[in-house]
Parts: sequence; structure tokens; C-alpha cells
Amino acid sequence: MTTRPDTPLLDTVDTPADLRKLDKSQLRQLSDELRAEMIDAVGTTGGHLGSGLGVVELTAAIHYVFDTPTDKLVWDVGHQCYPHKILTGRRDRIRTLRQGGGLSGFTKRAESEYDPFGAAHSSTSISAALGFAMANKMQGRPGRGIAVIGDGAMSAGMAYEAMNNAEQAGNRLVVILNDNDMSIAPPVGGLSAYLARMVSSSEYLGLRSMASKIARKMGRRVWGGLEKAEEYARGMVTGGTMFEELGFYYVGPIDGHNLDHLIPVLENVRDSEQGPVLIHVVTQKGKGYAPAENSADKYHGVAKFDVVTGEQKKSSGGPPAYQNVFGETLAKLANDDPRICAITAAMPSGTGVDKFAKAHPDKAFDVGIAEQHGVTFAAGLAAEGMRPFAAIYSTFLQRAYDQVVHDVAIQNLPVRFAIDRAGLVGADGCTHAGSFDITYLATLPNMVVMAAADEAELAHMTYTAAEYDEGPIAFRYPRGAGVGVKIPEKLEKLEIGKGRIVREGTKVAILSLGARLEEAKKAADQLEAKGLSTTVADMRFAKPLDTALIEKLMRSHEVVVTVEEGAIGGLGAHVLTFASDEGLTDSGLKVRTMRLPDIFQDQDDPAKQYDEAGLNAPQIVDTVLGALRHNSAGVEEARA
Amino acid sequence: MTTRPDTPLLDTVDTPADLRKLDKSQLRQLSDELRAEMIDAVGTTGGHLGSGLGVVELTAAIHYVFDTPTDKLVWDVGHQCYPHKILTGRRDRIRTLRQGGGLSGFTKRAESEYDPFGAAHSSTSISAALGFAMANKMQGRPGRGIAVIGDGAMSAGMAYEAMNNAEQAGNRLVVILNDNDMSIAPPVGGLSAYLARMVSSSEYLGLRSMASKIARKMGRRVWGGLEKAEEYARGMVTGGTMFEELGFYYVGPIDGHNLDHLIPVLENVRDSEQGPVLIHVVTQKGKGYAPAENSADKYHGVAKFDVVTGEQKKSSGGPPAYQNVFGETLAKLANDDPRICAITAAMPSGTGVDKFAKAHPDKAFDVGIAEQHGVTFAAGLAAEGMRPFAAIYSTFLQRAYDQVVHDVAIQNLPVRFAIDRAGLVGADGCTHAGSFDITYLATLPNMVVMAAADEAELAHMTYTAAEYDEGPIAFRYPRGAGVGVKIPEKLEKLEIGKGRIVREGTKVAILSLGARLEEAKKAADQLEAKGLSTTVADMRFAKPLDTALIEKLMRSHEVVVTVEEGAIGGLGAHVLTFASDEGLTDSGLKVRTMRLPDIFQDQDDPAKQYDEAGLNAPQIVDTVLGALRHNSAGVEEARA
Repeated sequence: MTTRPDTPLLDTVDTPADLRKLDKSQLRQLSDELRAEMIDAVGTTGGHLGSGLGVVELTAAIHYVFDTPTDKLVWDVGHQCYPHKILTGRRDRIRTLRQGGGLSGFTKRAESEYDPFGAAHSSTSISAALGFAMANKMQGRPGRGIAVIGDGAMSAGMAYEAMNNAEQAGNRLVVILNDNDMSIAPPVGGLSAYLARMVSSSEYLGLRSMASKIARKMGRRVWGGLEKAEEYARGMVTGGTMFEELGFYYVGPIDGHNLDHLIPVLENVRDSEQGPVLIHVVTQKGKGYAPAENSADKYHGVAKFDVVTGEQKKSSGGPPAYQNVFGETLAKLANDDPRICAITAAMPSGTGVDKFAKAHPDKAFDVGIAEQHGVTFAAGLAAEGMRPFAAIYSTFLQRAYDQVVHDVAIQNLPVRFAIDRAGLVGADGCTHAGSFDITYLATLPNMVVMAAADEAELAHMTYTAAEYDEGPIAFRYPRGAGVGVKIPEKLEKLEIGKGRIVREGTKVAILSLGARLEEAKKAADQLEAKGLSTTVADMRFAKPLDTALIEKLMRSHEVVVTVEEGAIGGLGAHVLTFASDEGLTDSGLKVRTMRLPDIFQDQDDPAKQYDEAGLNAPQIVDTVLGALRHNSAGVEEARA
Repeated sequence: MTTRPDTPLLDTVDTPADLRKLDKSQLRQLSDELRAEMIDAVGTTGGHLGSGLGVVELTAAIHYVFDTPTDKLVWDVGHQCYPHKILTGRRDRIRTLRQGGGLSGFTKRAESEYDPFGAAHSSTSISAALGFAMANKMQGRPGRGIAVIGDGAMSAGMAYEAMNNAEQAGNRLVVILNDNDMSIAPPVGGLSAYLARMVSSSEYLGLRSMASKIARKMGRRVWGGLEKAEEYARGMVTGGTMFEELGFYYVGPIDGHNLDHLIPVLENVRDSEQGPVLIHVVTQKGKGYAPAENSADKYHGVAKFDVVTGEQKKSSGGPPAYQNVFGETLAKLANDDPRICAITAAMPSGTGVDKFAKAHPDKAFDVGIAEQHGVTFAAGLAAEGMRPFAAIYSTFLQRAYDQVVHDVAIQNLPVRFAIDRAGLVGADGCTHAGSFDITYLATLPNMVVMAAADEAELAHMTYTAAEYDEGPIAFRYPRGAGVGVKIPEKLEKLEIGKGRIVREGTKVAILSLGARLEEAKKAADQLEAKGLSTTVADMRFAKPLDTALIEKLMRSHEVVVTVEEGAIGGLGAHVLTFASDEGLTDSGLKVRTMRLPDIFQDQDDPAKQYDEAGLNAPQIVDTVLGALRHNSAGVEEARA
């Protein structure tokens, strides 16, 4: 148990209104206390550390200068919102971050009026802030939109689309580009290089010349505040042509940890009649906490850790994470197959593509936060004879849905989709859950959709996908560690559209897709103990369905239950549709489908999430028993 | 019947290999003949005219200079590919464009090796071309990626994502920005203004200075070809900073109709060791055909027309198009409700938002080809108290799927989705069909999904959506004209999640969602004639389901058939899932679901498409009869 940090000034600040009562000269101390509080809190809960540490001063400065919550502050991605939460009435709950029932790790509208827009996926902030700005403009009332967006998030297309539309908002829109040159992975692409050139070429300008440049650009004269800070000023107005070409007034780069720069710049932007303005702020991820500053990923997402040493609580050994099984399997396969290549969208380690890249650097592509491009790029690679694996989290593949449909499925191109984080994801909550991929993929003609029941199955599916050149193929697998089965040296090429019987019985058949198989097997044990002979099948494929197996099991069992970790429209729907097409249910077969519930589940311990979802063994048993109790009049009889 | 144009030179050219045998001096004549041929063909078939006319010279020049099909030429969107089709072995079929069994109106891999990548949705070309370039680079063989992309398409995020990743391709990637300042609607946003500034500020440079500028930029000395064309040269290398900041060598703007400029520039780019290069070409949409040049939309998409007069064959009066019913209804509603606003992504007339914009210009937003931004912008508007309608075709809403999930559904924000072109779309074929929206939307928690059975229902749904502030709501409707019902003056606020009985019977129940209702009613007539008493329900909602109605009909009918114009996972899947959850099918109810088939249907006459899909009245009847023949052993008995 560590001692809480001493935070006398922060203790007086519950909301931004309190903050605004402070003298500017006190903001340095406030920021230091805020940083200490945040480090302590994340040490307790785990979570995103580096991003928040980088924006401590920026957070304080924005709330000090702007009129939140009337001005709508939108944090892009939301990784960096912990200091914001502390300053906006949520300090008392900050040590519940990412826990069940606690604060979300991202901004969330339900939590606070200071969170006007929830985030978690990247690059939405400018669009949302523009929405706020225009809504208030149309309604003739005050209220700016202020977006704080990282340089990595700027690489996504939707940020560009938003910038391209921003001019209409005038001075109601402020975009703060938080350039820390380090999102989760090192940044990628032309934009990043451009930003780096701007920062490295920035001169230390005398304040007078900076002020006059800004005045000239923005056509105003009220930059006086800056002159008082002349001795602190550096490097403003040295670039930004690209942003100006899109219609912004560009200001920067400025030092995002220097409050004596930040405050007057923000004040002048606030008071300007011109806009929209893009303020280019340079910050250091992990700032002010040595273990984070010195780490390669700046402690992007951390487990609970010791505040003094920075040592993170390690999870016990255990089975390998699915992502690493994928990455290592793919790397091995590529040793013998020069056509294999891998694409990640700014998630090299999260997807295991880092393991592949280490072995095959020329065959690995990190496209940045650019799933749309990544998928169509993969389609182009596939069309020209490569065997591309697009390794994208289920939730992020939503960003590229049209590309999956239009560029891959319609053209029947053999792009392999390695879909990580399929199903519930624990502490990241509903924004990161992979709930919909079975449904949105299996509805597409030409698409093959697999789900891995364990890490050995994942290895087989990786190999199967590599060998499948007939069209697109997707395989999904959960977040976290495998179940502990051995991964065979020799991988098996699975027959497309064929499931496997895991256990044979006569009365009840459980059709499982994916990693709920362990729970299905447990449920079968419990059913057998009740005298109900139970078959368990691992369907392996949501599409094409193993219709022969389904028909056989339906004709020979009294109750058939499907189990999957996905929302409505997936395996269960496909099984029911097939069965009704064929008339298999006409004569009184009892079929039930178990799936994710029709809610967005908040963050929690994974086991609790599965309980809430109703996808653990006891609930499978209950479903079977309920079906058996259901009488021929279609009414469920009372429990015996 | 018009006389075919005289095309002696074009008659000698079947493929690009033939083209390359010509002398450069012959390309002018060839282009003129190509233009005449194209006008004549589109006069016969209807289709996209203006875009193709704008790129006649560019098409000839690219195939003349580059080594297609080894070099992979990717036409963005594909509207403009008709001259390309004529020059690449498909002239004999050019008068089958967009007909059933004929040539596609877009590029299509199955048609020709000269179509390495199919297109129809915008802004995919740079990603695909980069894929081709990198695949060939990795495989150590020749082959560039050449993307031709319009200025409108450049406004989409994925084009930017691709540019941001382009540098790695070096001289294997060539992007030709076809700047005609007119995609379908007038262009939108900062990028467009930027391009316009570049073009308008372009100076006429002497060729020597142009050549030296290019040589300096690209670090090479072989621009000699340009010197010979000095007298033709104008306006190169005058801008392009933005593209250069993203890692491109920028060349332009150049006159895209002047072959004496195009050819040497393309030759030099081809022979350059530096890259990637972006060539900024300025063209005129509709070029060379006076009726097109003088039209506001430059004859973007046309019906069959008289080549001499340019007069388009008008469709007979008939009922109004769904899109206009939507636009006009929304405009009326907004007279009394200042919170209503509308968003279109570069489709003002296609979505009917033009009608709304005429009445409420300050409340209409054309965001350009930027569906992602458009949806999250709408979410921001909704969060701040507006009542935004995002009017987006079903197929294009796929571009914004993650924004629908993450920014709208998770936050339960009342964005109204007006989904046009839902279902099959006739001549535009599978790339534009709206087949998946019911499935990909109804799987989302919080989402309400309606489908309009006719134009009066659409008006009611527009009103219902306006009044619904509890969360997101979507309503879908087909391409084309309504069925001819009167639109009531006083609109009805539909009860959420409630269907309506259209016709009452006792034995068979048809549950229809959307505009197949007419066919369902016809089928009911035919069934009654066979002595089968038939109920028809218009479900109105795919989500939430009218579970009370479904249960009632299932408990009182022998056969229940669902009918919808969408792929698997929609209404039918939801009905089956509900019924099995509740055990309604346990006691031998016969349920069948009718939906779009599991194929991507090619373009055809809509009636034929519905026949192929199996969604016309005779097939509904057959489905019912088949179910009735199905005996208790679960085997369909022979036809009586």
C-alpha cells in the first residue's frame, strides 16, 4: 500500500469552476499535483498512463481558459482523459477506473457533462467537435467545439474528412494537435514525417515576431498577452501549410508542458474572431514519470504497478496470448511461403504482427490508424498474387466494413482477416468489444468465417487461411491467453465448412463456435450428471455452415443449442435459417441460440461479463433444461 | 436509329498493343473517334457520360505510355472507364453496358485483364494501386500501380490514408489526380478550394523552366522530351505542397485534353527513378459533347438519349421517387421544427437532400465523399440538441459502419439514418445494391430499424424518426419510384416496434418488411385462390420486433413466411431467433424466411433481379406450398 501523494492545491479543485479561481501562477503546482495523483491512481488500477501524463498541463490549461462544459471538449481516443476526469468532479472515483461499476477508461457521456462525447476508437474528435460547433451556431447560443487529437489519430481518414469540412465553423472550432510522436506504436507515414519536419525545423522566435506573425495570419490585434511571455516563447508559426491549405489557421508548434506558452496562446485563440484554428502542441508521452519516459511505448497501457519502482504486476506465466500464437504461427508459415505478408493498422504488438515483422520485416506493413486503406491495400496485394493477412481487431474492422464488402468480398479476393479481440474484452468495455463481426461478415457472399476454440485451433486456422486462395477468409479469436492446449508442430489444413464432434451424445446437442467451447464442454458434463446425454460440436465455421453435421444432429437429438460470443445475426441465426429453409424444425425440434445480449456491456472482469452475457456453463445448462421443460403447447412447464 | 460514327483509326485498335503501334501524332484523331464512339454507345444504353468524356485523351495517353496490363491501371469509382473499355478489347460489347448479361458500368476483374481492380465506390484506387505496386516489388517483377482519381474522390478519408502510406512504393506508384472540379455534385471543402487555388494561380511556364523545375524536384535529367513540346507547355509545378508534404512528387496542373502535354509528362514519369508521383491533370467533364458541357451536372449519369439533340429519354410520369418523397417531407417538417437538419455525403440530388436544402439552406450539410465524418458529425449535432438526418445510400453507409456503432449506437444518440437504395438497384449492379443494412444495423443494441413498404410509409417514417429522440433510428427504402399511393397531408407517428396487419387470414401468414409488400399481397391473392387463407403483415420494424404480433400470428397460423429485401441476418433471422428463444417453433410450426440470395447479383432489369433473388409473388407462393407439403418426418412430399 503506497501513501497517497500530498496534493493541497488539487484538493481545493473539484470542478473547472474551482480551477478558474486560481491564479495562473498556481497552475504549475496544480499540474504537478495532478500528475502525482494520476500516477498513484493508475498504479492502483492499471490503465493508460503515458497518454494522460503527456497532457496534464494541456488539460489544466484548456479547462482554465475555455468555458467547459459550455464549450465542448472532445478528447480523441480518450486514452488521455484521466487528468480530465480528476479535474471534472470524478476524482473521488478515479481509483475505480476500468473496474466493474467504476469509471470508464475513456470519456463517456453518461459519466459527466464534461464528457460531451464518448471516445475509444481513434480520430472521431474533429467530426464530433464540428457537430457541437455547428449545432450551437445554428441554435444561436454559445459553445465551441474543442478537439484534442494525437498525431497518430491524424493519420486516419476520418480526421482528414473532418478537417476538410471544418472551415464553416469559423472560430467555434478549435483543434489541438497533440503531437507526441508516439501513439501506441511509432507513427507511420507521410503525415508523421511532415509533422516531424515542422517540429525539428522550428525556430525559437522572439515573442514580438511571433505575435506579429500570428496577428497577420489571423487578422487581429489582441495577441498582447503573448508579449508578456516573450521570454518563454519558442517556435511558433513555422509551418502548417498543409493545415492551412485545408482551411485552418495554424499556430505552433508550441511546448505543451509550458503553461506560460499554453495559456496565452489558448486565450488568444479563445478571443479570436477568426477560425477554425489548429494549435500544434508538442508533448512528451509519459512526461514527469521516469519509468514511463524511459519506456519504449511510454507505458501506453499498463497493468497495476508499483509507483516507486514503476514495476508492473506481472500476470502469472500461463498459456500464450492468442495474438502471439497468431504472429508466431504466421512467421513460421512465411519461412516457406514468400507470398505471405501481414498488415496491421497501428497495432503491431496488439495483433502479434510484431512477431511476424521481426522475422519478415519486408513483408510486414503497419499502415497507421488507417483500417480502410489497410484492407483495400490487402485486396491489391491479393489481386497480384500475395497472401496478405489483415490483422485487425474485431471492433476496428468495423472501420473498414465497406472495403471488406466492396473491395474484397465482391471481387472474391483472398484477403485473410485475422480478427483479434473477438467477443468481450474486459476492462476496455463496450467500445472495444468485438461483438458484431460474425454477423457483419457472415452475411456477405463469398466470405468464409471461422472462429478458434483454442490456441491450437487458431494455429490450424492461420495455416488453413494461408492455404485458401479461393476468396476471402476470416478467423476470429478472443482477447487474452489461450486455454493451455499444446500447439502441434504439424498444422492441419481444415476442411472448409466442416465442424468437428468433440463429444458424442444422444439427447442434447450443443453447437459451439469459438472459445466458449470450454464452457460448452463443462455444461455437457453437468447435463450428463443429470442423465442427459449430450453431444458437443465445435462448428469451426459460421460460414459456410456444416449443414450435413447440423442436419444429422438435428435429426438425432431432441434439443439443439448454439453458443457463440457474438451478437444476434451470427451462427445461431444462420443455423436457424438453414434449419427452417430445410424444414428441419417443422416437426417439433427444440432449438435455442445463445449469443451476446442486446446491450452494450460495460467494462468488468471478463468472468463477470460472461455471466452478464449468459454465456457460461450454468446458463447453457439452464437453456437446455428450459427447452426440455417446454411442452408441446409451446408453454414452459414449471420447474419439476 | 442513329448512324454509327465513322471511326477508321479506332477500328484498327482492339487492344492497347495496337494503340502503341500508332504514331503520337495520330492520338488526336484516335481520341476524337473514341469520343464519338462513346457518345453513340451511351446514347444507346444510358449510363455515365460526362466522366468518360472528360478522360478520353487521358485514357489514350495512359495506355499509350504505360505497359498495361503489366502496369495495373486502377480507375477510381469507375464511372469514367467506358473509353478504357473500348480500348481494351471490349468495344464489341460496349452497347451492352449496364444491361443484364452485358458489360458492367464499372471496372470489373472478371471482364478483362485490363481491369485489375473493380470499382464503383469512391476513393479506393490509391490503396489498391499501392497494393499492386508493393506486391510486384516484393515479388521482384515489373508492374506499377497507376491510380486515376477525381478531385471529389480525394475528399474521402481513405484516399488520404493511402497517400499517407504511398512513399514506400517509390516510382512504382503513379497517382493521376483528375481534377474536373465536378464530381456528381459541386465539390466540397478545404481540399477543393485548395485545388482551385492551385489551378487558378498556375502560370504559363516556358518549357525550359518547367523542365528544370521538374528535374530539380525529381533529381533526374531525362526531361528532354518536354523541351520538344515547349510551345505547348503551361502551368506545371506551381503548387502541390500538400501532396509533397505527404511524400509525393507533384507535377501539375496540366491540361488533360492536350495530348502534347500529357504524353511527354507521362513518359517522363514512367522513366523516372523517383516517386511516387502525383500528376495533377485538369479536365472538363462532358468534354467534346456540347449538351454535356453545358449541363450543370455534365451529364453525370444519363438515361438513353438522342445523340444529336442530347435529349434524354424521359421516364413516364408515374409516382415520385422515394428520395424526393423523403426530401420534400423533411423540408416540410423542418418548417415547424428548427432542430431538423440534413447531411448528405456528396449525393444531394440522389438522396433528395437537395429538396431540403432549397428550403433550408442553413440546415443542409454536404460533407463531400466523407460518410465517416458525416455520421460522427451528425452524432455531434444530435448530442447538442439538433435532430440530424444522415441521408446515405445503404451501400455507402457501409463506409461509416464503425461510426454508426461507436459514435451513434453505443452513445444512444438520436441520429436519424435515411437509407436510400436499400435492396437491389438494377443497372448499377452489386456494388451499389443495399443488401446488408438490415443485418448490420439490427444487430446493434439501441438501434431502431424500419423499412418503408411504400412512399406514404416513407413519409410516416420520416416523421416518426424526426419525433424519436430516444436513440438512433434508421429507415430504409428502395431505389426508384414509389408504388403510387397518396401521401397523406397529416403524417402519422408510428408506434416504435409495431407492425400492421394488411390483410387477415387463418392458415398462412406472410410477414413482410419493406417494399416487397406488394408482392406479398399478390402472393396472398394467389394463395387465397388455392383455398389457403392468408394473413399479410407489414412488420415496419426489423428492430425492435413486434414480438406480440409475431407470437399471435405464429400461434394461429400453420405456415409463417418472412419476406425482406436484404441478405441473411435481417428480419428473418430476428424472427427465427425470437421464435426459438420463446419455444414458439418447438411444436411443429412451419417457418420459412425469404431474403436476398447468397450471391452478389450482377446488373439487370430490376424485375429480373427480383426473379433471380426469388422475391416475387410466384416464389412466395412456392415457398408457402413447399412448406405445406413438408410432412411430419421433415421430408418434403412430392408435388400432388
